[in-house]
Amino acid sequence: MTSPYPHSDRVEAAIDAFFTEARARSGRFGDRYSDLWATIERGTRGGKRFRPRLVMIAFDACGGTDLAAAAQLAASYELLHSALIEHDDIIDRDFVRRGRENVSGTYRDIAATAGLALPAAEHRGLSVGVIAGDLALSAAYRLLERAIAAVPERAQLLRDTLDDAVEAAAAGELLDVDFSLLPGVPTVAEVLDMERLKTAVYTFEAPLRAGALLAGADLETTAALARAGTAIGIAYQLIDDLLGVFGDEARTGKSATGDLREGKRTALIAHAAHTAQWPAIAALLGRPDLTDAHAATLRQLLTDSGSRTHVEALARDFAERGGDALRHVAVPETARQALMPLLSDVLERAA
Amino acid sequence: MTSPYPHSDRVEAAIDAFFTEARARSGRFGDRYSDLWATIERGTRGGKRFRPRLVMIAFDACGGTDLAAAAQLAASYELLHSALIEHDDIIDRDFVRRGRENVSGTYRDIAATAGLALPAAEHRGLSVGVIAGDLALSAAYRLLERAIAAVPERAQLLRDTLDDAVEAAAAGELLDVDFSLLPGVPTVAEVLDMERLKTAVYTFEAPLRAGALLAGADLETTAALARAGTAIGIAYQLIDDLLGVFGDEARTGKSATGDLREGKRTALIAHAAHTAQWPAIAALLGRPDLTDAHAATLRQLLTDSGSRTHVEALARDFAERGGDALRHVAVPETARQALMPLLSDVLERAA
Repeated sequence: MTSPYPHSDRVEAAIDAFFTEARARSGRFGDRYSDLWATIERGTRGGKRFRPRLVMIAFDACGGTDLAAAAQLAASYELLHSALIEHDDIIDRDFVRRGRENVSGTYRDIAATAGLALPAAEHRGLSVGVIAGDLALSAAYRLLERAIAAVPERAQLLRDTLDDAVEAAAAGELLDVDFSLLPGVPTVAEVLDMERLKTAVYTFEAPLRAGALLAGADLETTAALARAGTAIGIAYQLIDDLLGVFGDEARTGKSATGDLREGKRTALIAHAAHTAQWPAIAALLGRPDLTDAHAATLRQLLTDSGSRTHVEALARDFAERGGDALRHVAVPETARQALMPLLSDVLERAA
Repeated sequence: MTSPYPHSDRVEAAIDAFFTEARARSGRFGDRYSDLWATIERGTRGGKRFRPRLVMIAFDACGGTDLAAAAQLAASYELLHSALIEHDDIIDRDFVRRGRENVSGTYRDIAATAGLALPAAEHRGLSVGVIAGDLALSAAYRLLERAIAAVPERAQLLRDTLDDAVEAAAAGELLDVDFSLLPGVPTVAEVLDMERLKTAVYTFEAPLRAGALLAGADLETTAALARAGTAIGIAYQLIDDLLGVFGDEARTGKSATGDLREGKRTALIAHAAHTAQWPAIAALLGRPDLTDAHAATLRQLLTDSGSRTHVEALARDFAERGGDALRHVAVPETARQALMPLLSDVLERAA
């Protein structure tokens, strides 16, 4: 997913311009506030720009021409992503994301270096993370209105799309919180529902829908792209869950023991809970002292239980549904050509 | 501040209609999500409607006529308030606000009743509080756009006003986090700055400005009202700090030992830090086991140090500045008449 995408330079310029303006405006509320904006900006650097990419692919494929507006829309979804991961990290008490300190980690470290005891430093970090997420969420709405100014006739649909993304992510996070804290194991259907809501809607469905809407695509095309986005998004999450257990850490950059140590309720685990291997799995899963040997045992058990095969088949099934949606007659050939490689990328991650 | 205000029935109807719609829409994301909206709605009931009140006073006094739009604007500021207090409570790890469970408290209690250990139940409560605040913040932006639809020529100014309120609150919360966690005592000027940013802007300045803008008031009038709002807002916060130490609990409904036990950095404390009484104050302030006798001693020390008198004078000074702003020639007589009683209300709380 590191391939270039249409007009990525325009998107980067829009994101840069937004932060330049935010930092310039921030001075009126003091230096500490300016520093926070600089930290938020650093946190967005080097992101995969997954959501902007999908906005721009859909916009371009549907024949959109107002690139300035599209770049604002893409930036809006990138800031939404910043907001959601910052608050997701608060909920998970994570101070690091993809090997780098997030806003909470940065503010925790500054306080700890200044001599604050760790619990207080962590509290400070998490508190500032709450504030940073609110600012990024507010920014997503601000950027959306700038995009909308170009197409007032699509204003309501574009606003509904962002609202839907925010609401779906909230509903999915709510389910995920309970999966991680309440006893018992959810069903595979419940996990799929959570993954659709928490990630697939705001990452795949909404950006594709929004890009198409801004380009002026008709509602049938927009709906087909959105359907494709949902299905591809669920396939992506299922493969992410597989990689979190069976992946090559060197290649994925993602720990292959973290999910097991945490006892994360993924589709793999939900399937395994109804197999003969479950008692053996449950005895190791979620142990804070989980070793590499435990992890290897769990991998074998999740393979023997058929859970790995089941989830791989599920991922292919959702990817195929995505492909079917893309082959819908309403989807322009340009969009199909641009998005089919995305589908292959998603599936090849697991290969 | 429990006196009726112009068109409060319209505001209540707009808030009710918003929640009715949100609950109806929420069904698509599952029952748990619907329950969360019902909890957010319950949390807004019985509020003082401070911000809607100021929106409607300014709107009415400036000759506004589109009451439907004004009610949406007022509802937007009420939802912003819900968002900010929910996230402020997360930062303070508070599960109760004004004697009732907030969203976090409600979700903590459900989990604890279901048998979850208290730390996990609290974590669940705080996590859901993060989500609820995000939804309320998103709602504030949604409601704003509904108000703006009536006055497209004022769209940018109204959006800037809400953004400013969100940003000021973030900057103020950031200062407050550091006041409560970092060693040392801020100066009186720093506390005033924090109180202006954290509360006065979004509670007083922005609602008055927004109401006037929506009514079509000229920018000189709007600016004078905003100035009045800032000054009255700071006076209000100073009196709140005084009541938090010297108030009659039965009358204010606010604990007169909580701030002292917490060691809250108020203007009172900031002043006292540079007086001869400070060593004696510092020895008691912030003790988790603070008794009523300790509190009585602290009250005497804060009186002897001149801090009480100093903060009372400051509050009167800011109230006078508010009055001066209201007497500005650009402020319509109707607005002056509507807002002068507010000024007296604020000062009389301390009497």
